[in-house]
Amino acid sequence: MTTVWTQARRAARMNPSIIREILKVTEKPGILSMAGGLPSADTFPVEALKAACDRVLTQAPREALQYAASEGFGPLREWVAARVATLGMAVRPDQVLITSGSQQGLDLVGKVLCDAGAPVAVETPTYLGALQAFTPYEPIFASLASDAEGPLPEAIAALPHDAPGTRFSYLLPNYQNPTGRVMGAARRAEVVEASRRAGVPIVEDNPYGDLWFDAPPPAALSSLWPEGSLYLGSFSKVLTPGFRLGYLIAPPELFPKLLQAKQAADLHTPGFNQRVVHEVIRDGFLDGHIPTIRQRYKANRDAMAAGLRDFLPPGCEWQSPEGGMFFWVRLPEGLDAMALLPQAVEAGIAYVPGAAFYAHQADARTLRLSFVTLTPELIGEGVEKLGRLLHEALEAAAEPAP
Amino acid sequence: MTTVWTQARRAARMNPSIIREILKVTEKPGILSMAGGLPSADTFPVEALKAACDRVLTQAPREALQYAASEGFGPLREWVAARVATLGMAVRPDQVLITSGSQQGLDLVGKVLCDAGAPVAVETPTYLGALQAFTPYEPIFASLASDAEGPLPEAIAALPHDAPGTRFSYLLPNYQNPTGRVMGAARRAEVVEASRRAGVPIVEDNPYGDLWFDAPPPAALSSLWPEGSLYLGSFSKVLTPGFRLGYLIAPPELFPKLLQAKQAADLHTPGFNQRVVHEVIRDGFLDGHIPTIRQRYKANRDAMAAGLRDFLPPGCEWQSPEGGMFFWVRLPEGLDAMALLPQAVEAGIAYVPGAAFYAHQADARTLRLSFVTLTPELIGEGVEKLGRLLHEALEAAAEPAP
Repeated sequence: MTTVWTQARRAARMNPSIIREILKVTEKPGILSMAGGLPSADTFPVEALKAACDRVLTQAPREALQYAASEGFGPLREWVAARVATLGMAVRPDQVLITSGSQQGLDLVGKVLCDAGAPVAVETPTYLGALQAFTPYEPIFASLASDAEGPLPEAIAALPHDAPGTRFSYLLPNYQNPTGRVMGAARRAEVVEASRRAGVPIVEDNPYGDLWFDAPPPAALSSLWPEGSLYLGSFSKVLTPGFRLGYLIAPPELFPKLLQAKQAADLHTPGFNQRVVHEVIRDGFLDGHIPTIRQRYKANRDAMAAGLRDFLPPGCEWQSPEGGMFFWVRLPEGLDAMALLPQAVEAGIAYVPGAAFYAHQADARTLRLSFVTLTPELIGEGVEKLGRLLHEALEAAAEPAP
Repeated sequence: MTTVWTQARRAARMNPSIIREILKVTEKPGILSMAGGLPSADTFPVEALKAACDRVLTQAPREALQYAASEGFGPLREWVAARVATLGMAVRPDQVLITSGSQQGLDLVGKVLCDAGAPVAVETPTYLGALQAFTPYEPIFASLASDAEGPLPEAIAALPHDAPGTRFSYLLPNYQNPTGRVMGAARRAEVVEASRRAGVPIVEDNPYGDLWFDAPPPAALSSLWPEGSLYLGSFSKVLTPGFRLGYLIAPPELFPKLLQAKQAADLHTPGFNQRVVHEVIRDGFLDGHIPTIRQRYKANRDAMAAGLRDFLPPGCEWQSPEGGMFFWVRLPEGLDAMALLPQAVEAGIAYVPGAAFYAHQADARTLRLSFVTLTPELIGEGVEKLGRLLHEALEAAAEPAP
């Protein structure tokens, strides 16, 4: 068929998200899904949001329903600046840009900082959505060698600095998606020091930082190197993802271009949503609300940790996360998480094969399990099914080929 | 000052919106602003939205507050497909992508269709926000020679078709921003025929089509050439801009890439907003609501037409728009709308200098006046002040330099 349309070169690089395709499969009724990173709907503060919608539409309907500033709603920007002070960051409200979810922050960062062929460093593995957000801007991804605390400082030190220069390292220090790992205080200092020496700035993504179980994570990377850091935050995991509200905090030199990119992208984030969320959180609501989420997710984490211990075959490896939403499991040699997925779905469970999270050289033995969507009981059931599947797969792998 | 950040090449092309800067000035209390294209807040259906928020958060809170499909809320996509059938377009719901305002549709179009150095054709003049949305993707703009009905078919016929090919013409056939002009039925047929022959597809933007005063506009360009057209619509002008809801309708061959671009840009448009708007409009609300907006804007148009006739000095040119939100005025020779703006603000009024809307060779004598934000009485007052200013400017221009 002939076509009158010519697509952009970058379009050839854009691909459907494997997670998205998996989620479609797992929407079948009866599947125990540990695939998606969906916050528990039980944590959504429905009544508070309902009351806030009513108040906003009663007190300021003309403003809330009108076009609004691209920077975001002033009081919400002030709230964010005050909030991140608790992470050690000293920022002014005029460094805060309200975004349509922190995913949009990633897109704006890509638009303003990525050139075709210029390296962008990412953790090994890293958040798939960031790879998707940056890819249309045609960077070359540099996969940073990483361990249980995240990227190695020496990997950052070795990043290319000749023109066009490594534009930034994209780092998730708190309960990383997909691995669940957290970067300790000493590692943070080393990573920042290596980045500073290498002249490679940091884009710090922190959607999960509030979801700690026993102790809060160390201070933000951005607090250690303000002029070399750009910070992304979100209301999706502590309030609701359905309002699509996030924020970006940028050094003053970068803010104007990010703001112009935001304006070109969608004029502004819905003013109504910003006002409603501000109305909910303005008087300390999150101080009472977030601990209830932590408690719930910690119980879920414990249920999954117990299930993995009880049901997974020898040779599987994982660490119990200290916060966030995910376990990262490495299967015994000879098993392939992607190849096993159809059988898993057949058995009534779903996970995300880890291969999706690598910019290069995927580890086919890895998979990601979310523990926040299901109840502890269903988590136990799901992990038991996973264990049975893996036992069978190991036995099948041990048999000689017919 | 040294910096650790390297910006993308495209960032150098991105500039602050002149409209945005003007709007800041005109936020001063007491300014009669005819600058911004802000719908009248009196038209926002506050009570209907309030009731819908309550219903959505009562009936489907877990779904409305959760992550959702990148394509958009199914029933809203169905509504859109049925709605555009009234414009002569036969589309399936799976060709409808819900966007965060139609501005986001422009960004996604740029991302999927624009390459550095490939031409994109635009009307002369055209919507500034489209120039801003496409610019980061580094197209070369081709300004189509245009008359009172929009672009000339022969200008489309003459577009470059050698590689990399003109990627599309961006056209606003209904009450165009900024000129207010509408494309007649015969011109539509000629434009589509010329586009088809030239092999240049059409991106049709229709935010104002519902705002006709005496008779609806002719059928959509997209109805005449479905496979060669991509259509953008919006709820901003008929319901509220503060919810940031628009949509894009694409030929099946383009839909998957646009969807991937959408997913990378912000995952999805807020599900809550989509459900609330669907709840408001599902039972024919707009059929009663839009006529009240038309009636109001028509009275405003009449007030501005009368004011311009009464107060503007000889030599000024304008057409009375048959719909939409804007008058486009051309000043007598020797006057410069941009140069006069500070005096206008001093005199208590604001407009947008037309120069902002040209991709090339701006006509410095043009300006855009919105008639939808102020009341008829204030419009009269504003235009009277504008007339006084222009009379004085003409007298000053006629005086010999000291």
